[in-house]
Amino acid sequence: MNAPDATPVIALMDRLGSAARSASTAMAAASTAAKNAALLALAREIRAGAARLAAENARDLDVATRAGLAAPMVDRLRLTDKVIALMAEGCEQVAALPDPIGEMTNLRRRPSGITVGQMRVPLGVFGMVYESRPNVTIDAASLAIKSGNAAILRGGSEALHSNTALMALVVRALAEAGLPGDAVQLVPTTDRAAVGRLIAMPQYVDVIIPRGGKGLIERIAAEATVPVIKHLDGNCHVYVDAGADLDLAVRVTDNAKTQKYSPCNAAESLLVHRDVAAAFLPRIGAVFAAKGVEMRCGPRAKALLAAVPGAKLVDATEADWAEEYLAPVISIKLVDSLDEAIARINRYGSHHTDAILTTNHPNAMRFLREVDSASVMVNASTRFADGFEFGLGAEIGISTDKFHARGPVGLEGLTSMKWVVFGQGEVRT
Amino acid sequence: MNAPDATPVIALMDRLGSAARSASTAMAAASTAAKNAALLALAREIRAGAARLAAENARDLDVATRAGLAAPMVDRLRLTDKVIALMAEGCEQVAALPDPIGEMTNLRRRPSGITVGQMRVPLGVFGMVYESRPNVTIDAASLAIKSGNAAILRGGSEALHSNTALMALVVRALAEAGLPGDAVQLVPTTDRAAVGRLIAMPQYVDVIIPRGGKGLIERIAAEATVPVIKHLDGNCHVYVDAGADLDLAVRVTDNAKTQKYSPCNAAESLLVHRDVAAAFLPRIGAVFAAKGVEMRCGPRAKALLAAVPGAKLVDATEADWAEEYLAPVISIKLVDSLDEAIARINRYGSHHTDAILTTNHPNAMRFLREVDSASVMVNASTRFADGFEFGLGAEIGISTDKFHARGPVGLEGLTSMKWVVFGQGEVRT
Repeated sequence: MNAPDATPVIALMDRLGSAARSASTAMAAASTAAKNAALLALAREIRAGAARLAAENARDLDVATRAGLAAPMVDRLRLTDKVIALMAEGCEQVAALPDPIGEMTNLRRRPSGITVGQMRVPLGVFGMVYESRPNVTIDAASLAIKSGNAAILRGGSEALHSNTALMALVVRALAEAGLPGDAVQLVPTTDRAAVGRLIAMPQYVDVIIPRGGKGLIERIAAEATVPVIKHLDGNCHVYVDAGADLDLAVRVTDNAKTQKYSPCNAAESLLVHRDVAAAFLPRIGAVFAAKGVEMRCGPRAKALLAAVPGAKLVDATEADWAEEYLAPVISIKLVDSLDEAIARINRYGSHHTDAILTTNHPNAMRFLREVDSASVMVNASTRFADGFEFGLGAEIGISTDKFHARGPVGLEGLTSMKWVVFGQGEVRT
Repeated sequence: MNAPDATPVIALMDRLGSAARSASTAMAAASTAAKNAALLALAREIRAGAARLAAENARDLDVATRAGLAAPMVDRLRLTDKVIALMAEGCEQVAALPDPIGEMTNLRRRPSGITVGQMRVPLGVFGMVYESRPNVTIDAASLAIKSGNAAILRGGSEALHSNTALMALVVRALAEAGLPGDAVQLVPTTDRAAVGRLIAMPQYVDVIIPRGGKGLIERIAAEATVPVIKHLDGNCHVYVDAGADLDLAVRVTDNAKTQKYSPCNAAESLLVHRDVAAAFLPRIGAVFAAKGVEMRCGPRAKALLAAVPGAKLVDATEADWAEEYLAPVISIKLVDSLDEAIARINRYGSHHTDAILTTNHPNAMRFLREVDSASVMVNASTRFADGFEFGLGAEIGISTDKFHARGPVGLEGLTSMKWVVFGQGEVRT
């Protein structure tokens, strides 16, 4: 299997890959009952193992603190009682979701006599590469189990003790349910060459899901030889149309920007139709000023905001229109038409989530159709772009690609549709 | 846009890409009526331009013949009256298909008050790389128009005059319907660097569809930086189960292998359960012997076929089990169980199309679920794996991948589903 010069880490990854491929066959054929039993067992194991998890997590925290890791990073690493309880609940929620596997749709009789339709099946094996938060280990394991896939997980080196302890619980839960222990595996080394191999063994791994910073995801997408469900940046726009309900516009724009600054679905750019700018901008500007949100403005927007007390106004540069701040900063620009708004969003946006606030129905429908983003909204906060809010019941990531899964990715994003044909001996003539 | 050292061909491709990206916006917003008008205009243009097409095609044929191109290649290049008529009819058929763009599905009210669903939209721009047959130019153009995508087409250098003449008709048809002429563009050079650029400009091209030999497709998949809808080989299996209806099994196996040898959905491997082998193999062996089909056999199969008059029997090597012959050759092996059949198909097959011939319902359903192929069939010929037979109305290719489109790819494979949200001012709390 391995070339004579294969390094130990490549040989290790090939063993993990081969085991995952074998386990994926059993997982694809596993009953809904067995998969749910494994998920409920995992919830029990997590609750019963809370003290042990906390102890192993303390080892990671100790190393991280002594290594001088920044406080927010250390926080993300921490398995508090609440995080542990949420992990267990998450497994139960995934168990309660409908099993997507095996559903057959669109069965239709063809003139030849055959009946043709599609069946939903697992993708096979997914690889997940993530940083710091150890609870992602349980998210990924539970979604792999429910979707009938096998998974190979590569967590952050700073979380290795925590992840190893969590994985022991996953393996026990799989065994309790009679499912193969190799269905979910953790890469047991922090060697970076392991990632290089994980993303380049199409014989064993069908798709890679990276979770982390833009740099990590770009590197993986550039080097992977299998498909990547990638989530790059979220430069989300709110466009306030001519004739918008201004009370609604202030409420929704405020929520989209300030309800939380760090998520990818927070608004980063505000476009305002010139006809409502004089009425709208001072109102939202006052909200932003009160919350300390810096406004990077085009000249016309800046003029209309100049009189707002305490407003932090900065001249926007070209780079601002494309920036994902993830901070109390927003770019603001006047536009002369819906066409200009759509064109700017398609040019400067990141195809993640964009909203129009309007009372004009044709404008709403044009925006929905023509803005080329994973989630497009009318009169709602961009912050709703989320697997749970959309009703997926779970979320393994958010895709900013158009291919395969787009936007929030739940269980269905880990499946594919194959064609099924039922015949009675038909032949082609 | 271009680095100072950009070669002319890269600058050329970037111009095509930029024009395609612009045109894709207009195409995404185009009405069904305009798209159908363009398709019907194209059918008229093709019929009216038949003499001119034949003349331009004659130039390609002349060059090809003088260059000593093999006769089958010259045949594929030929635009006969029949091929020209079929191209025109194809455009009319695509016009008659439902427009997939804009359909909204699964709209559901969420507890937050927002209504969430999905809208089908074009992928954007696809690049197509193909060989010899100039009619692919019209196939690709008509599917691009109907699906609201823009396309950049790179045909074979041997068909450049034919393709250029066809493209002139496409541009006229687009203009007649008021659609942008850049919606479909032909790469006007045979420089191979053009392909290298086409598959590596994600800012302009969203997906590549190669049509041609395995070597071409593997090269493109390895070098592309955008998704590739790739169709590699079709090592299709027929598995004759214990208790199969032997009359049906002979008829279907014969059809799957011999109705035509060159298509990718023709059977290349026959697996037979040991319990029916003695009754079945001599019968199908006699059919194959009569048609001159060479049988590459495992030892047990060979023993059962030894008495068939005129049978061309060869000992199979390990390589035979994975081979796509596209010729009057088939590999034949006995298996001891359904499990062994499924395991062999998943190991040696190419995940294209595989069929079980059986009267046993649980076995049929296990085969459908567990064989990891794009098309899985019960009691029907593998030759049915085809966009037209499946009812797609058109086919841009067949995918052997699991990601995005799987199996025959029609209009829907050129689209993606984005999320749409209808709100009344909801905010996230």
